[in-house]
Amino acid sequence: MGRVYNFSAGPAVMPEEVLKTCAEEMLDYHGTGQSVMEMSHRSKVFEEIIQTAEKDFRELCGIPDNYKVLFLQGGAWTQFAAIPMNLMKNRVADYIITGQWAKKAWSEAKLYGDARAVASSEDRNFTYIPDVSDLPIREEADYVYICQNNTIYGTRYTSLPDTKGKTLVSDVSSMFLSEPVDITKYGLMYGGVQKNVGPAGMAIVVIREDLITEDVLPGTPTLLKYKTQADNGSLFNTPPCYTIYTCGLVFKWLKSMGGLAEMKRRNEEKAAILYNYLDSSSLFHGTVEKEYRSLMNVPFVTDQDEINKRFIAEAEENGFVNLKGHRSVGGMRASIYNAMPREGVEKLVQFMEDFEKKI
Amino acid sequence: MGRVYNFSAGPAVMPEEVLKTCAEEMLDYHGTGQSVMEMSHRSKVFEEIIQTAEKDFRELCGIPDNYKVLFLQGGAWTQFAAIPMNLMKNRVADYIITGQWAKKAWSEAKLYGDARAVASSEDRNFTYIPDVSDLPIREEADYVYICQNNTIYGTRYTSLPDTKGKTLVSDVSSMFLSEPVDITKYGLMYGGVQKNVGPAGMAIVVIREDLITEDVLPGTPTLLKYKTQADNGSLFNTPPCYTIYTCGLVFKWLKSMGGLAEMKRRNEEKAAILYNYLDSSSLFHGTVEKEYRSLMNVPFVTDQDEINKRFIAEAEENGFVNLKGHRSVGGMRASIYNAMPREGVEKLVQFMEDFEKKI
Repeated sequence: MGRVYNFSAGPAVMPEEVLKTCAEEMLDYHGTGQSVMEMSHRSKVFEEIIQTAEKDFRELCGIPDNYKVLFLQGGAWTQFAAIPMNLMKNRVADYIITGQWAKKAWSEAKLYGDARAVASSEDRNFTYIPDVSDLPIREEADYVYICQNNTIYGTRYTSLPDTKGKTLVSDVSSMFLSEPVDITKYGLMYGGVQKNVGPAGMAIVVIREDLITEDVLPGTPTLLKYKTQADNGSLFNTPPCYTIYTCGLVFKWLKSMGGLAEMKRRNEEKAAILYNYLDSSSLFHGTVEKEYRSLMNVPFVTDQDEINKRFIAEAEENGFVNLKGHRSVGGMRASIYNAMPREGVEKLVQFMEDFEKKI
Repeated sequence: MGRVYNFSAGPAVMPEEVLKTCAEEMLDYHGTGQSVMEMSHRSKVFEEIIQTAEKDFRELCGIPDNYKVLFLQGGAWTQFAAIPMNLMKNRVADYIITGQWAKKAWSEAKLYGDARAVASSEDRNFTYIPDVSDLPIREEADYVYICQNNTIYGTRYTSLPDTKGKTLVSDVSSMFLSEPVDITKYGLMYGGVQKNVGPAGMAIVVIREDLITEDVLPGTPTLLKYKTQADNGSLFNTPPCYTIYTCGLVFKWLKSMGGLAEMKRRNEEKAAILYNYLDSSSLFHGTVEKEYRSLMNVPFVTDQDEINKRFIAEAEENGFVNLKGHRSVGGMRASIYNAMPREGVEKLVQFMEDFEKKI
């Protein structure tokens, strides 16, 4: 078959233009006679690739000079440990629990100090975002941690928590580069790239410079110290070069599309097409409170498991793949990241309508 | 220009056939309508990719069932910490220092316990491998650590150390899959893939099962525990999927070439062509003791810095790239990994002969 519409939650669909460039440049990058995969990370040509990627990322997000941008291996899970190892000076941190990923980050932080949940939406299976306007943030808390878009449950924060002056740390993996961001509200913002940016194998950490210190917890691996990476422009050791190159192509693509404000407009439009249909359907319905609906991950169900299964199977036969929901929600989930074209969402809705009619 | 002869120490040359397959399958892997970059790591199709990669790797190296093979992010530097965090039950380890990488691993291990250097060749700038037949290995040592091929200096062990019954841990990054290996002599063998296997962004750890325990040092990140990864077939979190796919293609290529015994024959042949010329040249000469010469990394110099520079520049103009030596050795270095064809070495030697004649 030709290319499918891929609704995977991550790794996920990438812009076809980017994949075409990857294919075209695979054996010979810009006349160097080498693949990017084969280049020394200390070569001038690779230095230009990584520096351009960082410059474009900064431009897209409007990152001020007092923030560092780090390209790191190990995914979000490594950051779950690196964040307390680097930031927990008082060994105290407050976590807001809005899904499995926040919960895992919280659990990892407990290895390093007194990490407490100051709010949670687990009581209703994470179908909403708790009120974060006046939380009992502790005076000695080193930071307040959130997962801003919850891939599994399909919720997102509509406003950031009042951290009572404490450093805000946010995992933005599943909403990375999907809309403009005011980085000055964060001390540290990070995400795995494998959902809304590029291929798996890298996280991007954006961190305010004053949080980067030598004073980390005893036993912190050298590579997990932000200072190691910040002082070396993410080139302390061999970075995931090809992933950086591919993400760099995605940044160029985002710029060519009009940047993050335009992506937000498109993402809102795509999400509205799907949510409007879900709200009008008598077969399918969304699973989260409307106010907190994610623009990126749209879980939905019918009332019968058998029909869910049949829908997923028939959708796959028709080129709409990876629609199966996460086991903790069940049913279906359509992840409609930046690289999912409007046409893909429209065709999915058309297919759902047709399915509903015949069922 | 066309493809060059790339003598980079890493990231380094890859088999052209592998790159061609990467390009061909970029937009549609085996009729799935998706790039491997876009696939869920929980999908059946990716599971087959990772399982086939592990199976082929095991077959190539003859790995017995009581060893686990782990595909991990974070490069060798992460292993420098993960090894003591997982294995240092007595907080004691003995390191043999044969170059910068062994030294860095040793220095990292000191964060976690009493890591001592039991032998070193630093006295003569790491131009040889010390006698390792009867070292003062400590009774309480949790392991003995070596770097088996020294990328920067161009040496390799000709026989493994007598560890007095202690676990042998070996970094084989720059000789990975270059010759047959008897894994039963090691407790843990590992390497970054970016030198002799695939693109940067992954290490492969081969570890005997009895060394994989819950009993790790306090503060070990969940992702750095070998047990986490071993229990989940390297799929605890999103792995570097595309790197695994690419390495898998390299494993297939190695099998098609005849496996590691045949690679050893070819590598010895290639190295001999270069070393024989160096031994006969009156302009160029090798920098290490003959007995310990690496089959993979061949450092060489002339007596004048000016001539070195001119040689490197002219070589590059003629399509022999990345020949500049590491700053701690100077001069030149030709890395002639598996993917460097014999023809590349022959043409380099021809070019060196011509250069020598005209100088």
